[in-house]
Amino acid sequence: MNYSIIISILGYVLKLEGILMLIPCVTAAIYREKEGLYYLLAVALCLFVGFLFSIRKPRSNVFYLKEGCVATASSWIIMSIFGCFPLWISGEIPSFTDAMFETISGFTTTGATILNDVESLSHCALLWRSLTQWIGGMGVLVFLLAVLPLAGGSNINLMRAESPGPSVGKLVPKVRSSARLLYVIYFGMTIAEIILLLIGKMPLFDAINTSFTTASTGGFGVKADSLTSYSPYIQWIVTIFMIAFGVNFNAYYLLFFGNVKKALKTEEVRYYFAFIIGGVAIIFFNILHLSENAFDALTKAAFQVGSVMTSTGFATANFDLWPQLSKTVILILMFIGACAGSTGGGIKVSRILILVKAVKNELYSYIHPKSIRKINMETKPLDTEIVHSANIYFITFVLIFVISVFAISFDERDFVTNFSAVTATINNTGPGLSGVGPMENFSTFSPFSKYVLMFDMLAGRLELFPLLILFHPQVWFNAFHRKKGRKGKKA
Amino acid sequence: MNYSIIISILGYVLKLEGILMLIPCVTAAIYREKEGLYYLLAVALCLFVGFLFSIRKPRSNVFYLKEGCVATASSWIIMSIFGCFPLWISGEIPSFTDAMFETISGFTTTGATILNDVESLSHCALLWRSLTQWIGGMGVLVFLLAVLPLAGGSNINLMRAESPGPSVGKLVPKVRSSARLLYVIYFGMTIAEIILLLIGKMPLFDAINTSFTTASTGGFGVKADSLTSYSPYIQWIVTIFMIAFGVNFNAYYLLFFGNVKKALKTEEVRYYFAFIIGGVAIIFFNILHLSENAFDALTKAAFQVGSVMTSTGFATANFDLWPQLSKTVILILMFIGACAGSTGGGIKVSRILILVKAVKNELYSYIHPKSIRKINMETKPLDTEIVHSANIYFITFVLIFVISVFAISFDERDFVTNFSAVTATINNTGPGLSGVGPMENFSTFSPFSKYVLMFDMLAGRLELFPLLILFHPQVWFNAFHRKKGRKGKKA
Repeated sequence: MNYSIIISILGYVLKLEGILMLIPCVTAAIYREKEGLYYLLAVALCLFVGFLFSIRKPRSNVFYLKEGCVATASSWIIMSIFGCFPLWISGEIPSFTDAMFETISGFTTTGATILNDVESLSHCALLWRSLTQWIGGMGVLVFLLAVLPLAGGSNINLMRAESPGPSVGKLVPKVRSSARLLYVIYFGMTIAEIILLLIGKMPLFDAINTSFTTASTGGFGVKADSLTSYSPYIQWIVTIFMIAFGVNFNAYYLLFFGNVKKALKTEEVRYYFAFIIGGVAIIFFNILHLSENAFDALTKAAFQVGSVMTSTGFATANFDLWPQLSKTVILILMFIGACAGSTGGGIKVSRILILVKAVKNELYSYIHPKSIRKINMETKPLDTEIVHSANIYFITFVLIFVISVFAISFDERDFVTNFSAVTATINNTGPGLSGVGPMENFSTFSPFSKYVLMFDMLAGRLELFPLLILFHPQVWFNAFHRKKGRKGKKA
Repeated sequence: MNYSIIISILGYVLKLEGILMLIPCVTAAIYREKEGLYYLLAVALCLFVGFLFSIRKPRSNVFYLKEGCVATASSWIIMSIFGCFPLWISGEIPSFTDAMFETISGFTTTGATILNDVESLSHCALLWRSLTQWIGGMGVLVFLLAVLPLAGGSNINLMRAESPGPSVGKLVPKVRSSARLLYVIYFGMTIAEIILLLIGKMPLFDAINTSFTTASTGGFGVKADSLTSYSPYIQWIVTIFMIAFGVNFNAYYLLFFGNVKKALKTEEVRYYFAFIIGGVAIIFFNILHLSENAFDALTKAAFQVGSVMTSTGFATANFDLWPQLSKTVILILMFIGACAGSTGGGIKVSRILILVKAVKNELYSYIHPKSIRKINMETKPLDTEIVHSANIYFITFVLIFVISVFAISFDERDFVTNFSAVTATINNTGPGLSGVGPMENFSTFSPFSKYVLMFDMLAGRLELFPLLILFHPQVWFNAFHRKKGRKGKKA
């Protein structure tokens, strides 16, 4: 394995993180918060280690899928370790495990929190939390690819490992241009949301934070009641933007270049909206009798559906108190998730479509055993490899899910808490039901369970395999084996 | 489609059911119960309709996979309709839906009941319930294949549609001999259990019923508390037999012919016992503090693990009151299920093994993208088709599972009840947790939910596709189309 390129990438990641941490420093300066000093210290640390990692030039810029995965997974882990540093040493989150949990929850855009009272945090900590989500939403390596002159054509493997969904989020032939385009759309839409929230008289600080965590479908809030206390106008703006950020960014690219027809015809996008409309309809009728009026029921249904479907995790209602039907719908939507190539989490609509079509195909093969039918998507036949990958992805997902529920059940909490805690983390949603409902938090889990859930958050965000590969002995053993071989030759 | 052969098979099935119903008639005569008359009526009805269906000789004895599936699924449905008849008209189960539920639960060896007080049933009804399980355990069509001179080499398609597990349970080259051998082992082991239970001083009636429902891993009991009130000796005998009936019958075939080494080396059987030992160990330590002594804890842990792993569903403890860890283990074991080619339900150990190996293979392909590795089972590489089928099976299973949980959540019962009700029916286990725990029953669900759960029981027993195919329009449309075509030619 090409270790030198991985270390060099980690160096870039840390330097970038150091620069981004200047933003909470500025926030601290504005609000005259002494916590800012810890962020300055963290900046120094990130830059120092980052430069250390960059001293040695990589032997070669070429890297394969394996290196892409290992680089991505280790970037996310190291980013979280350095990212939790100021939260931890400032004493705002006194436990290292909790600080790690909060930071991983941030970068993976999960939005699950261990904080009992989020409003007691300093402004700089709040902004840093929101910023981790904004960075994690589109991906830190995608950002690096957009701004750095990383030579070599094989850096598509970096983007592939970090981008969500069954197909690669490559909009235009060149990786760098694709990455830039993604960030331009992302940045533009975030600014648009800030402006619209300001029009709704949301305070600037809240508007920036809310937009960061909507754009990334992250869901960290600056208030203890999430978005419950804001006006219906603000809630609707956030609903619309949550849903918009869950759409495949390819559709925006097509829209941007005037190809409206093709954008609307995307199968995944159509089913995405169908699921949202279906979910809103069921929940609307199910909670109507509990609401003040129909508009209130619709506002709540649309907000919560948009929030869980896109894996954002904001709440304007304690859906844990809703009827069982609504709660079941909420759980199912968490699993389905947003579109591939968006900032949303979950299994992704396109994968669900592939799975359903594969099942239909199998049924067809019972009727016509000799005929071979390809699975179509957007009227084009899908590559067998993609179908196979989606199948295996789903199986791996369920296996990790079951093992995680088993692992955290050592804590002896009720089944709904355990089940929905894993659902909310592996799908990067945030809140679950019962003990981890929207008005509860994850602080009461044991440290062991918290690490299991951190693993799930990373697994969900990195789409399982780039993280799992770190645990495969052959990744490390083969590398060691080859090194020994080389040394032998030299001798 | 070859309708005539399907109708002819349905005729055989009904005649066989009529003959088997004579057994509860004899029971009624012994205990002088007037309910016996309804069973006599049912015998007459079965034989009459059976003969009606047999009047026309089938045009051809050849049938394909499609016909095999349709014949199997419709046999099971028609068997249940006629089987529930005496329970319903005798007034012992006054609602038709409930009588259907109980009968489907019987034939599919699920063991979920809608009865609040099973002890108030007549002896003939109790025996009929147990007998439905014994018939369903090995399969009614397998029985027909064993005793009837069904000509044509293609009747392997009948057995394939009814036998559980990813590979066909064909022990010897000839289908008929395989089917006979299976029933000989099945019958012999049932008798052995009856004798051992009688030695433990269990009343004869209880011993016959318990053995019928152990052999089929069905789980219907004749007492309201299942097997709680019997002696530890009896509980251990039942534990051992439950586990024995969950073993792949191929292993017994190998043992029978002295091939002990090969029988013990079967990968599936080894993992099956590993899961059982692991499950017993975890639960033993988890419930030790709740038990009278270590032996009591071990007896309870072993019984309950054997019961849910093999999908039997007997209980000697209300595991719904156990700590969460034990409950989670119970749920997971329900999904894993027994070995393929046994009478047990669940996803089956061999499928789980194939899935885990497929995931490992995918991970390996990230490290060595160009190498192609086959999945091995018993040191032999598996056919890609089998791996693909196992993958699709699992995906279909999960999709049906999710849709079912959604469908029954309209009843507004808690999530654990809904989740475990579907788990207990689709895996043919019987009892679940919370509202459907081992000391509860399924009577309080709405009729709609009951039909959903009946569908799940049949889907689980028939391994999904033979049942799903009935809902595919092409099965019926194509047949219609061809008929029209033929008529057109004649004209």
